[in-house]
Amino acid sequence: MRMKTVASLGEAGVIAQAARRFRGSGLPPSVVGIGDDAAVLPGSGRAWMLFASDMLVEGVHFRLGRASAQGVVTPQAVGWKALACNVSDIAAMGGLPRYAVVSLGAPPATPASVTDGIAQGLARCARRFGVAVVGGDTVRAPQIVIDVAILGAVGQGKAVLRRGARVGDRIWVTGRLGGSLRSGRHARFVPRVEVAQWLVRHGPVHAMMDLSDGLASDAWQLARAGGVTLRLQAGAIPVAPAARTVRHALMDGEDFELLFTVAPAVSRRLPSLVEGVRLTEIGRVVGRPAGVEMIDERGRVEPLVPAGFRHF
Amino acid sequence: MRMKTVASLGEAGVIAQAARRFRGSGLPPSVVGIGDDAAVLPGSGRAWMLFASDMLVEGVHFRLGRASAQGVVTPQAVGWKALACNVSDIAAMGGLPRYAVVSLGAPPATPASVTDGIAQGLARCARRFGVAVVGGDTVRAPQIVIDVAILGAVGQGKAVLRRGARVGDRIWVTGRLGGSLRSGRHARFVPRVEVAQWLVRHGPVHAMMDLSDGLASDAWQLARAGGVTLRLQAGAIPVAPAARTVRHALMDGEDFELLFTVAPAVSRRLPSLVEGVRLTEIGRVVGRPAGVEMIDERGRVEPLVPAGFRHF
Repeated sequence: MRMKTVASLGEAGVIAQAARRFRGSGLPPSVVGIGDDAAVLPGSGRAWMLFASDMLVEGVHFRLGRASAQGVVTPQAVGWKALACNVSDIAAMGGLPRYAVVSLGAPPATPASVTDGIAQGLARCARRFGVAVVGGDTVRAPQIVIDVAILGAVGQGKAVLRRGARVGDRIWVTGRLGGSLRSGRHARFVPRVEVAQWLVRHGPVHAMMDLSDGLASDAWQLARAGGVTLRLQAGAIPVAPAARTVRHALMDGEDFELLFTVAPAVSRRLPSLVEGVRLTEIGRVVGRPAGVEMIDERGRVEPLVPAGFRHF
Repeated sequence: MRMKTVASLGEAGVIAQAARRFRGSGLPPSVVGIGDDAAVLPGSGRAWMLFASDMLVEGVHFRLGRASAQGVVTPQAVGWKALACNVSDIAAMGGLPRYAVVSLGAPPATPASVTDGIAQGLARCARRFGVAVVGGDTVRAPQIVIDVAILGAVGQGKAVLRRGARVGDRIWVTGRLGGSLRSGRHARFVPRVEVAQWLVRHGPVHAMMDLSDGLASDAWQLARAGGVTLRLQAGAIPVAPAARTVRHALMDGEDFELLFTVAPAVSRRLPSLVEGVRLTEIGRVVGRPAGVEMIDERGRVEPLVPAGFRHF
């Protein structure tokens, strides 16, 4: 028998392993913890909070350089991205980002211009979305590591969870998918805060998440969380120019667009453009149990393999 | 002219560089941001929040193994330490820890028993201090990196800051200092939450911080924050058995004890033992401007060099 490793467990396995250990550490039943884009915490009165973190590692999530080769980005872009993925998590819960703390690991020989560039990128994203960067940590590390933790605000009971999809719901995405790494969009994307706010005002939105691992993988997350079967129309999926094929739109990851479901009556009222961002209906919730199917141009239905970005 | 690096800036330089970029990102004036153990955030009503993060990097802050060689610790100890340093930050502000998110980076070949051990240690610390671990992130990294962000609670206007020391104040520490790495205490220390709570109830405590870089370095932090001169009595500094000398007690770092100042009237009422933890008066705030002096057994006063743990 081979030793179990992080690679053999996969991301979901590592999270499940940790969640078992953390269980019963005293969460009130109204709180949503591990497994959504952000945790939902009860505040005093009607102001509840959202809490999330995201880690970026040099050589894994980005390489620093002159932004010419694929995946190579400037320090400013790394800073922007580090905060933007957290802002995206808050947006996907229907909340507004408020405060962030930043932990930065860096080798001693890192040029000061690099750490300053990262700070500039973080600050630019913070200003754009009204986030106050209020603290953090700086440590020595063999490569640059940035972890941002974010605190957001949401009305009591108003957080939009992954698990809320209902049979009959229509499935929508914002923007166009795929080719994020190739086009450099992965490091300069604009989190969908304004669109998400518009949607929760014009909803209700039953379920929502941001797309980080690729639609094929993330659709499975939504399906599993709600115990529902999603049927996606291959021909309806909006493909980004840099992606070219539906396959890339399904697999590429790092889109940071929103995937959400609404009742048919709400769906009929949704425009195709909100706050300058395209909205596209890509399928419907057809039943139970958890599953994702794809229907092609000829009407053939096939199961969709939950492939996408592998974390380990 | 040589290129400026993170090493030449030092931790304080990197933080100052970032703080300049983050300035004016819309903090209300009542909020304490970068530079204290935790940021103080206004909540609704009288329940305010504390927000902090700490990053631990394998090979820098710990080495994994059988806990025999110096600095070598078990995965459980790493998990405990990752949360405990954050709990210590909240304690040092006079607050109570509430929620944490954990970002874990690990190589794909990491044994599942290691990540599970880390989760166990985190969970044990979480239960001990009533912290709910509510989310986080797991990513691939060349070595294990753990960043914990913590959210604490404190009454409105009740947070104890580093900058509050006043001329005439008496200076105290909890516990005994030094030898933390040698004794293994650095990975199994108990954050001083109960003592800090007792102190704020029996205070007022004018200034407080936790000792992480060594008393010599951290005393300078307190002195600079308050613009005051601290005079420490060499003979009064409580030396841990593993430290042996006052020099180690001043320099070793990772004590995670509390350094605090109180008015003479409060000082006279402080017992030498609270909640099973030793309290020791080690000096007084003798004037302005920012400085730290040491007075030896013969009454000679000398400036104390702000040496201690170098982060870069």
